[in-house]
Amino acid sequence: MLSPPAALSVAVVAGVGRARLLIQSLVNCAARPIDRIDKADSQAMIIAMACATPLGGLCMADPNSFGNRAESGDLQPLLTRMQALEDREEIRNLIAGYGPLVDSGNAAGAADMWTDDGSYAVGGMGLHSGRAAVETILDSAGHHDLIGSGAAHLLGPVKIVLDGDSASATGLSIVFRHQADGFAAWRVSANRWALVRTDAGWRVQHRDNRLLDGDPAARALLAGDPETS
Amino acid sequence: MLSPPAALSVAVVAGVGRARLLIQSLVNCAARPIDRIDKADSQAMIIAMACATPLGGLCMADPNSFGNRAESGDLQPLLTRMQALEDREEIRNLIAGYGPLVDSGNAAGAADMWTDDGSYAVGGMGLHSGRAAVETILDSAGHHDLIGSGAAHLLGPVKIVLDGDSASATGLSIVFRHQADGFAAWRVSANRWALVRTDAGWRVQHRDNRLLDGDPAARALLAGDPETS
Amino acid sequence: MLSPPAALSVAVVAGVGRARLLIQSLVNCAARPIDRIDKADSQAMIIAMACATPLGGLCMADPNSFGNRAESGDLQPLLTRMQALEDREEIRNLIAGYGPLVDSGNAAGAADMWTDDGSYAVGGMGLHSGRAAVETILDSAGHHDLIGSGAAHLLGPVKIVLDGDSASATGLSIVFRHQADGFAAWRVSANRWALVRTDAGWRVQHRDNRLLDGDPAARALLAGDPETS
Repeated sequence: MLSPPAALSVAVVAGVGRARLLIQSLVNCAARPIDRIDKADSQAMIIAMACATPLGGLCMADPNSFGNRAESGDLQPLLTRMQALEDREEIRNLIAGYGPLVDSGNAAGAADMWTDDGSYAVGGMGLHSGRAAVETILDSAGHHDLIGSGAAHLLGPVKIVLDGDSASATGLSIVFRHQADGFAAWRVSANRWALVRTDAGWRVQHRDNRLLDGDPAARALLAGDPETS
Repeated sequence: MLSPPAALSVAVVAGVGRARLLIQSLVNCAARPIDRIDKADSQAMIIAMACATPLGGLCMADPNSFGNRAESGDLQPLLTRMQALEDREEIRNLIAGYGPLVDSGNAAGAADMWTDDGSYAVGGMGLHSGRAAVETILDSAGHHDLIGSGAAHLLGPVKIVLDGDSASATGLSIVFRHQADGFAAWRVSANRWALVRTDAGWRVQHRDNRLLDGDPAARALLAGDPETS
Repeated sequence: MLSPPAALSVAVVAGVGRARLLIQSLVNCAARPIDRIDKADSQAMIIAMACATPLGGLCMADPNSFGNRAESGDLQPLLTRMQALEDREEIRNLIAGYGPLVDSGNAAGAADMWTDDGSYAVGGMGLHSGRAAVETILDSAGHHDLIGSGAAHLLGPVKIVLDGDSASATGLSIVFRHQADGFAAWRVSANRWALVRTDAGWRVQHRDNRLLDGDPAARALLAGDPETS
């Protein structure tokens, strides 16, 4: 049986007042559909509110208590982990779409993978800065001749490293060309993608591509040496 | 001491509409280990129930309040996002399993990737309709000769587009054949997988495969033109 | 307003058996920033806390009620599904990093993918047991000559099967070598990775690699026959 002094001390610990929280609780109650409220018994309602308030206050004030634990305490880390998985999935899907875009001759679609000021350093074919320049090379007569006679840009799985709103993806790519007796691996390259999160989703800021023909710079790119990408 | 009428009036707050919830609260309490319940104070417990009820009612009746917020309010969007990631993961894993199945001669296992009425259009080798027909071609003497002399079906990463209970996956595949001095890329193809969610998980409704030998239809497949798949 | 006696009687609800839970509630309250506390209305607070206590007791005592439902009831399955997706992502990323590591000559980094006692059976090149032995072969003159003249280890997508703290990943790999007129597929292999969860993340316990040159053991490996890995 709790004695009056005890009840008082409980009140003190509550830290007198929580007016804001009290009001908040009442607002929540008021927000409920009116048909849920039994208007017939106002005195009972006073008691009900009094009973509801402190717990409402506790719930709203302390993320480690009651209902809000899930919202404030448990879900945020879960949401953060979910976002990281979705970021990786989106980046993987973006890069997986590159081959189908360039092999079907959709230069504009492929260039849309890049940011406006994104760039693409093509091993042995120079640096192309800006989305328009990327589209130009992907729409070149040389590229259309390549795919017209049969070609495939296979981009292998990439190792993705997320860093907030930026990310890197590293992997190999092979360009196959059709020939009389099958297909030849014309270009086998190292690729390092620098990606950024934009309002339109993840986009390519820079793609560094180098032929794995013995060029030490290609190995440096795969090693993640900063000067290469 | 709260008078019976007062205690009753608190209960009234529950309102007729809360009867079910009140009962639920009492059941929850009853479900607690008996040693947690102070039997010495049954009258207090009666009041406790009365006080608890309206808030119990709030909790259970209003998805935006307290405990149920997490369950009804916050988790659903999270569950939807989780399901989408799991769908993508399952589809990617399904397609990644194709090579190991056909290269090990497991025609039945590979055919099980398809729905009963699924189909497979093999570039240059006709359309095979129905899982049984898919299994037949994957179990053909030609296929067994191919893998018997050394072959590998490499399916590259796929771009996955989810649409509820259906999805598409687009990517490249290479069939390597062993030869005296190494391996040759015998077939390099464009692939478009149309998948559907079934009670047994994601399955292939149709796989469209076309050699990237200059055939415009292969480029159209990669472009996602409807007529190709 | 509720009369003091009534407030007192409500406090009785706390019940002797709830002492521990009461204290827990108070600690939660005390943890709140002082500036959140309003100095008014102590009498209301007496009623409030007194009312809160028993229900606080209910909340904390019954994992199926109110706030704790979310934590104990709803989130655990979600957390389990999230973990499985993260495990798959980590394993996929680990294997995707193998090529860049060995093609850039980072033998130590590649060997770190393995557990201390992990092993690597290289088709045609023997079994290498222990991380040190794995590093030794990846740091051999033969390997450095290979990458020095231009080589790429493409590891295709893997089918991942999770089993708690262990997993398997099955897929194909191609080693391309640079040559005068492009690149040749020197080795095309079946791979079976046996992975384990460690304090440092997922690591390779054993990698079984066999050339797909017609060797039935390579097909058995892809079929997942136990004796092969």
